[in-house]
Amino acid sequence: MMSVKFRKLALIGIGLIGSSIALAARRQGLAEMIAISTRKSETLEEARALNLGDIYTLDAAEAVRGADLVILCAPVGAYEAIAKAIAPALEPGAILSDVGSVKAHVVKVVGPHVPAGVSFIPGHPIAGTEHSGPSAGFAELFAGRWCILTPQPDVPQAQTEKLAAFWEGMGSDVEIMEAGHHDMVLAITSHIPHLIAYNIVGTADDLETVTKSEVIKFSAGGFRDFTRIAASDPVMWRDVFLTNREAVLEMLGRFLEDLSVLQRAVDSGDGPALESIFTRTRAIRRSIISAGQETAAPDFGRPHEAPPAPAAPLFVREHGGGDDA
Amino acid sequence: MMSVKFRKLALIGIGLIGSSIALAARRQGLAEMIAISTRKSETLEEARALNLGDIYTLDAAEAVRGADLVILCAPVGAYEAIAKAIAPALEPGAILSDVGSVKAHVVKVVGPHVPAGVSFIPGHPIAGTEHSGPSAGFAELFAGRWCILTPQPDVPQAQTEKLAAFWEGMGSDVEIMEAGHHDMVLAITSHIPHLIAYNIVGTADDLETVTKSEVIKFSAGGFRDFTRIAASDPVMWRDVFLTNREAVLEMLGRFLEDLSVLQRAVDSGDGPALESIFTRTRAIRRSIISAGQETAAPDFGRPHEAPPAPAAPLFVREHGGGDDA
Repeated sequence: MMSVKFRKLALIGIGLIGSSIALAARRQGLAEMIAISTRKSETLEEARALNLGDIYTLDAAEAVRGADLVILCAPVGAYEAIAKAIAPALEPGAILSDVGSVKAHVVKVVGPHVPAGVSFIPGHPIAGTEHSGPSAGFAELFAGRWCILTPQPDVPQAQTEKLAAFWEGMGSDVEIMEAGHHDMVLAITSHIPHLIAYNIVGTADDLETVTKSEVIKFSAGGFRDFTRIAASDPVMWRDVFLTNREAVLEMLGRFLEDLSVLQRAVDSGDGPALESIFTRTRAIRRSIISAGQETAAPDFGRPHEAPPAPAAPLFVREHGGGDDA
Repeated sequence: MMSVKFRKLALIGIGLIGSSIALAARRQGLAEMIAISTRKSETLEEARALNLGDIYTLDAAEAVRGADLVILCAPVGAYEAIAKAIAPALEPGAILSDVGSVKAHVVKVVGPHVPAGVSFIPGHPIAGTEHSGPSAGFAELFAGRWCILTPQPDVPQAQTEKLAAFWEGMGSDVEIMEAGHHDMVLAITSHIPHLIAYNIVGTADDLETVTKSEVIKFSAGGFRDFTRIAASDPVMWRDVFLTNREAVLEMLGRFLEDLSVLQRAVDSGDGPALESIFTRTRAIRRSIISAGQETAAPDFGRPHEAPPAPAAPLFVREHGGGDDA
């Protein structure tokens, strides 16, 4: 594994992903200096209080000046304005990357603003939690997870290798992919799961025949699993669906076709069809666990309460002697 | 909390739920003797090797003879045959219950076989993992989870209280509910989540544009969450959808209506609508966590790998002195 150290890393945006990069890059010695820029001054002060970087500024152009690695970590909807603002300050030889969940759109809105001599390599670490903001980050977030890089055609191979080494230094595996293909792969592995999770949580919230209190009490039947990704950052996810429309609609169409087959099987009471569909899906989870992308522990390893202490044997209660205090 | 001890507990079926009851009931001192009956002799031998009970038999009628608490823990599709087989051996004064995921169907197929003097109180613990079989059980499974009881009209109140005390003794909270209402509540909190999880895992498995290896590698984007419940027991879930058809189809209809609204918002690029839908769903997760039905830890508390050790400082490499062995 190639070892790498950037002179100045500029993070534009400092939510869950930006703050995790700051913590991991510092701990792993991947950057001499970290500059952090955000749009909101409260967020910047939060990052400063958490001691995430070395330089804090509301001026993105100032943050990128002299940086050899710039990573956009803001919601994708803000990228075009950021690209315009930082373009004049980007240094020749610098790598410009990002962590957005869509890639073709990023190429389209950022690409035209990238000055000659700057290597534009959009990226996407497939890692996260449902928490957001600078305090949600942690240095282990990327360890064992994949990071997809989509280097643009004119980027020197050595620059892509340098950025790959940066992600590998934080513990990630790196895959190179074409931006459009990325968007198709993530539509099914991430965007559609989020869409249907948001949707079922909304459906449950709106029912008249089942109260909200019942949904909450009995959520351990499966529903609560969906509420995790449906608790993800709303602005980030709005931007994903605004910017990966075609791939999302295509995959949603496939999902709905399959669902209507399942709906007919339920409606007609077709036991063999249901059992056969439900049997084949187990294998995928086993593969995901084998690939190190999921825990093998039952129930995601959720903690379990201990049951109550067994009732005291009768003679103890009869003879007393216990101390209730 | 009332304390209870049954003379003889008979468990008909010994998968994840049956074995967890056996372990919890013994540890909590809720039964003097535990009789276990299964249809397959391999499963019975597995239960014996795990030391889950005191009596092991392939004859369900023998297991229930002399029992004051009988709990059906087999797939719901097997209930009618079991009810016929055990009916002549059920003792007057005994409680007959179950753990099935549907309740109106259980009342319909088991009810007619219950002899006079036996208290029929169908039940459903809202607890489980994606693992199945006798070795998957553990005594903590029901602690902090709800158990729904649907006592039939002629059951003495004292019998329902005794069964409630049994579940409370294993750490559960108990809710009394009408069977039909149970089926509606569970359709949205459990059955539809399973149906759409099975469905999306199937969709991802069938794509031509995205390889299975890509789905597996990049599953941490959200997809892997769905694979957990889609790895649940196929026969059990086949039976759920065969026996709660109407409630499932009604809730699926609501889900699909909401999904078409979301689909239109994506199609028309309606950012404010998307953001508003994605914002309201966060509150439900917070309520579920407050109610003690979910962990507050990010990512369900999944374990995280440590990143690689930082590269050794340059002078160490230059001067040597390290020991690679």
